[in-house]
Amino acid sequence: MTETGPGTVPETAERDDLEGLYGVTGELVDAVYDAVHENRREAIAPLIAGLHEADLADLLEHLGSADRAVVVEHIPDDIFAEVVSHLDETVREELLEKLDTRRLAAVVAELETDDAVDLIEDLDEEDQRELLDAVPAGDRLLYEEALAWPEYSAGRLMRREVVAIPSMWTVGETIDFMRSDTELPDDFYNLVVVDPAHKPVGTLPVSRVLRSSRPELLTAIMNEDIRPIPVTMDQEDVAFLFRQYAMVEGPVVDEAGRLVGVITVDDVVEVMEEEHEDDILKLAGVGEDDYYSAVMATTRSRFSWLLVNLFTAIAASGVIAFFDAAIEKVVALAVLMPIVASMGGNAGTQTLTVTVRALATRELSPGGTLRAVAKESLVGLINGVVFAVLMGVITWTWFADPILGGVLATAMVANLLIAGLAGTLIPLGLERWGADPAVASGVFLTTVTDVVGFFVFLGLGSVILL
Amino acid sequence: MTETGPGTVPETAERDDLEGLYGVTGELVDAVYDAVHENRREAIAPLIAGLHEADLADLLEHLGSADRAVVVEHIPDDIFAEVVSHLDETVREELLEKLDTRRLAAVVAELETDDAVDLIEDLDEEDQRELLDAVPAGDRLLYEEALAWPEYSAGRLMRREVVAIPSMWTVGETIDFMRSDTELPDDFYNLVVVDPAHKPVGTLPVSRVLRSSRPELLTAIMNEDIRPIPVTMDQEDVAFLFRQYAMVEGPVVDEAGRLVGVITVDDVVEVMEEEHEDDILKLAGVGEDDYYSAVMATTRSRFSWLLVNLFTAIAASGVIAFFDAAIEKVVALAVLMPIVASMGGNAGTQTLTVTVRALATRELSPGGTLRAVAKESLVGLINGVVFAVLMGVITWTWFADPILGGVLATAMVANLLIAGLAGTLIPLGLERWGADPAVASGVFLTTVTDVVGFFVFLGLGSVILL
Repeated sequence: MTETGPGTVPETAERDDLEGLYGVTGELVDAVYDAVHENRREAIAPLIAGLHEADLADLLEHLGSADRAVVVEHIPDDIFAEVVSHLDETVREELLEKLDTRRLAAVVAELETDDAVDLIEDLDEEDQRELLDAVPAGDRLLYEEALAWPEYSAGRLMRREVVAIPSMWTVGETIDFMRSDTELPDDFYNLVVVDPAHKPVGTLPVSRVLRSSRPELLTAIMNEDIRPIPVTMDQEDVAFLFRQYAMVEGPVVDEAGRLVGVITVDDVVEVMEEEHEDDILKLAGVGEDDYYSAVMATTRSRFSWLLVNLFTAIAASGVIAFFDAAIEKVVALAVLMPIVASMGGNAGTQTLTVTVRALATRELSPGGTLRAVAKESLVGLINGVVFAVLMGVITWTWFADPILGGVLATAMVANLLIAGLAGTLIPLGLERWGADPAVASGVFLTTVTDVVGFFVFLGLGSVILL
Repeated sequence: MTETGPGTVPETAERDDLEGLYGVTGELVDAVYDAVHENRREAIAPLIAGLHEADLADLLEHLGSADRAVVVEHIPDDIFAEVVSHLDETVREELLEKLDTRRLAAVVAELETDDAVDLIEDLDEEDQRELLDAVPAGDRLLYEEALAWPEYSAGRLMRREVVAIPSMWTVGETIDFMRSDTELPDDFYNLVVVDPAHKPVGTLPVSRVLRSSRPELLTAIMNEDIRPIPVTMDQEDVAFLFRQYAMVEGPVVDEAGRLVGVITVDDVVEVMEEEHEDDILKLAGVGEDDYYSAVMATTRSRFSWLLVNLFTAIAASGVIAFFDAAIEKVVALAVLMPIVASMGGNAGTQTLTVTVRALATRELSPGGTLRAVAKESLVGLINGVVFAVLMGVITWTWFADPILGGVLATAMVANLLIAGLAGTLIPLGLERWGADPAVASGVFLTTVTDVVGFFVFLGLGSVILL
């Protein structure tokens, strides 16, 4: 299923603004596919020469697994390392499983520590062990240190290569050091100024050093307003800091406050992407990004949420069953009951999503509960009244029964009010209990709006109409 | 409602990792609130002194509108400018409306062009005119040029202040220029190398210039692999490029390919946030981020989606009404029918969300249609069969009626298959017709799964059971 042809040709890339800027075109994917399938393998290398590593990764993602393996053979080791670090996780795991340890070690050796760790942490324990045995001892130590930090922590995200400068140095000394030291990377944006205990006390853009006079002390020109990131900080909080303070780089410190690494914004952009992906998928009841997953893996990942939903749907049916005598007599109740439940579910989802977002962006905190709950309940109440009038009139006309219209209108107001309440209280409650407010909110919410919707409408109906 | 008390105290900020790193604490908000309300206004300035502009913006957001106006008086002009550029749009608009043109002009004068334009574009036309008349002529020209670019384009996002260096210069000349030119900003990360026609031909991190020998030519050490961003490019595409190529800065060019500005990653991070916010809210049928909006504005923004949902719910009721005779005889049909519809709606939403995300991240393009549709239909079919067996047995047991169980099982398979189909085809169709696949997909989808769910279940039920 997932192996058939060049199905994923990104035709849009040619139709839009990105033409010439984004390297992966439909023609390219077609050409590579044809080269593989017509056994003109010598044509592959010229086709992919000059592609950016990120584009090469996209190209591989657009190919089936067998074709991918063929193309990979034509990518040089030094480029392949970067390509791997750009791959989607599902595709990467599949690819790395096929690689022997020697090539894997060569790939890892080409990467900066943060990218290397990002790759190593996805391997299963045995492969990790094998790989770590195959890399040079110095690197191994760095990787093992990084892997000792909790998953999704700043320690996993940071690069160990930092340009740290003693705080007693002058601008002149710093410039001379930067020009002469052969160990430094060529490209870096900020210096981290450290005190004798190796604690960061400031940061300095290279340009500012260059534009100051040589005798000046670093401490006189550095940014002192720094926020050293604890190495155990959750990556979501790291992303929040970068966003809040428009940071490009941030020093990372250990428990004693000593500089141990630096996090750069490009890695944080990836984290932001992952966290957003997570939020949006969780709200829809999808466990993980399974676009590249095989059919059975996808089916399994969707199953659990659907199972939970089945039980809540059965609960709602139980409520309906309770009123079966009323439905037998007034079948219009059965006809109309999904409207009340559906409107409640939708209004609740609106509130829920806004609340989950406000929690994620720290616009809303548990302390803000009262105002948020009051506002959303009021919004629900007002829309409830509006739709009650509208649907009450429609029902009256449809079934020529003003009382049925009144019952529906009352149920509508009640359910939209409850939807506003539940849409805020459920994520707030989950957050307060330390659970992720995105992941289970939806089930609870629709259970509430279904049960309340059916109960109020059918209950009122059976009391008033029978 | 939105004006009552220090309700939104961000207590979480104290409980978690961000303590000491994020400036806004519950105590601070409380203290400022108390200072305002106990008429100790002299206490405000010391409380907010030293706060980062972004934190000051958050503090203002956490206060009610009247309190906010009091605190604003205690913020110096140069800081206030940055604070304003960090404010949530709703809060910002409300605040700027109260400001007289003179203070607004003073605020704008403190900002870099991109932030200034970001602020000006939110004003209504008359206020814009007034403000532009009040700023110096040179700035006015820059702003007017920027405002001439389409909204959400690279032109609105870019900074005009660029460090552009002629391509014939050596490293030595460049260093001397950077050290001596007083017009340059102190902090910048990359130089843009331009040819005699002012077209960018490469970029150079300042550190790399510093670490090269003086006689070397810039053209020998620069990054030639640059992607000049057309000034009219949509900001979503700009964000894609920055993410794809892990860019920190990107040169922006006009139609003739001449350098006109530069976009930095911090502005792109904001765009990414906005786009994500947009996606997640649209999927839930919320028009815009209305967390800070007043009750009536929020009610209106939610109304239109609920109205659309009402009509689709009525359509589904129409299907039920068509089978009212069957329901009257077998009331179990009414009891069970929401289960089929609900499972279809949920399975469809899972597929829909994954598809919308895959389109947004360019994992999926219209060319990839076939594979995606086939995969999701198969996933729907498999889960359909599993849940059909499960729910068929439950129904059989519950109502002691194997035939009713069979009817439900069949409807379940059909609806989950249709959900997989509709969950991919609807967003793909919208994308192909040039519509936003996130915004209307949900309505279409639940209409399909409701109508199909009710129709198949009740239709089969009335044919087989009566």
